[in-house]
Amino acid sequence: MTRIEQQMQFIMEVDKLKNITRQTYIADGTRKENDSEHSWHLALMCILLSEYSNEKMDALKTMTMVLIHDVVEIDAGDTYAYDEAGNLSKRKRELEAAERIFNILPKDQAIYMRELWDEFEAGETPEAKFAITLDKIQPIMLNDLAGGKSWVEHEVKESQIMKRNESTPKGSIELWDFAKNIIEKNINSGNIIGSN
Amino acid sequence: MTRIEQQMQFIMEVDKLKNITRQTYIADGTRKENDSEHSWHLALMCILLSEYSNEKMDALKTMTMVLIHDVVEIDAGDTYAYDEAGNLSKRKRELEAAERIFNILPKDQAIYMRELWDEFEAGETPEAKFAITLDKIQPIMLNDLAGGKSWVEHEVKESQIMKRNESTPKGSIELWDFAKNIIEKNINSGNIIGSN
Repeated sequence: MTRIEQQMQFIMEVDKLKNITRQTYIADGTRKENDSEHSWHLALMCILLSEYSNEKMDALKTMTMVLIHDVVEIDAGDTYAYDEAGNLSKRKRELEAAERIFNILPKDQAIYMRELWDEFEAGETPEAKFAITLDKIQPIMLNDLAGGKSWVEHEVKESQIMKRNESTPKGSIELWDFAKNIIEKNINSGNIIGSN
Repeated sequence: MTRIEQQMQFIMEVDKLKNITRQTYIADGTRKENDSEHSWHLALMCILLSEYSNEKMDALKTMTMVLIHDVVEIDAGDTYAYDEAGNLSKRKRELEAAERIFNILPKDQAIYMRELWDEFEAGETPEAKFAITLDKIQPIMLNDLAGGKSWVEHEVKESQIMKRNESTPKGSIELWDFAKNIIEKNINSGNIIGSN
């Protein structure tokens, strides 16, 4: 296969993300969003909200990271944040997926995309920390607009949300503060089960 | 409204792109894709295929451009490429939409995003030319994988495709050559009505 054919094969392979459904509803509450819609939303947020990053970062790198961060779910599926059993096997399934999917690309791009995905998973660089913050606050904003449906359906507790969001302030204290206000509002309205 | 509230209001407003259906089927042919999925796909293509740009370009700018290029369709709707009547009123509807939607953002970002959209529409800079090339070749690739369904449904003629793609080589001769081979194949198989 030529270089361009390998690139196009990858581009068409990841079209499958359009069929990977997440647990989060779109803002109007009519249906759940999929991974490609979610990734588009994060990339746009990255551009518009980069001023709130705690640390100086490379916006192009962060955008690329969020565009591909869920690619492994083509094989591994979307594991709901509060599905404890699913999350135990998640890492193994996702590593196998990364191995298969990124290697469709020409070697140099396969290595770069895999490095970006590993960097996102590790969550240690300014870019990865900010990408993770976006990945966590976007569903909070959507859940709120959709009337808290997804939290109610899964009987989500405040303590679960707080545990899941331990790293969210690392990318942006201001964005986490914004999200905390939304969480607080939904605890008060009963959509999220409060700890007290 | 505070700056961050204006930004978040825009981010949630454009969630509506997830409900704007295009005429192109996703690769497996099961349903049509929407504007947010399409925009995600173009942004990823921008990163992976930038080496084929005829001119040196700023990839971050091009990615941002493709992420927001269809935002006006929230109000103006998707006008099918080969709908002649619809395309006559399209420009006016889209200008009104741009005026409303981008101005949800804080002034500096409203101006920047509107400039990017205008630049895309004008198609004169290296970034706009490459973004337009991606916007044109992505549906050709998807239509091909989906068995040519969308071309067949609309009885699309080779001459219409060629007219619509007059500017496609301006962003990348190599990507247009790739797409031309796909078009040729679908003329031969009868999915596209050939000129001879």
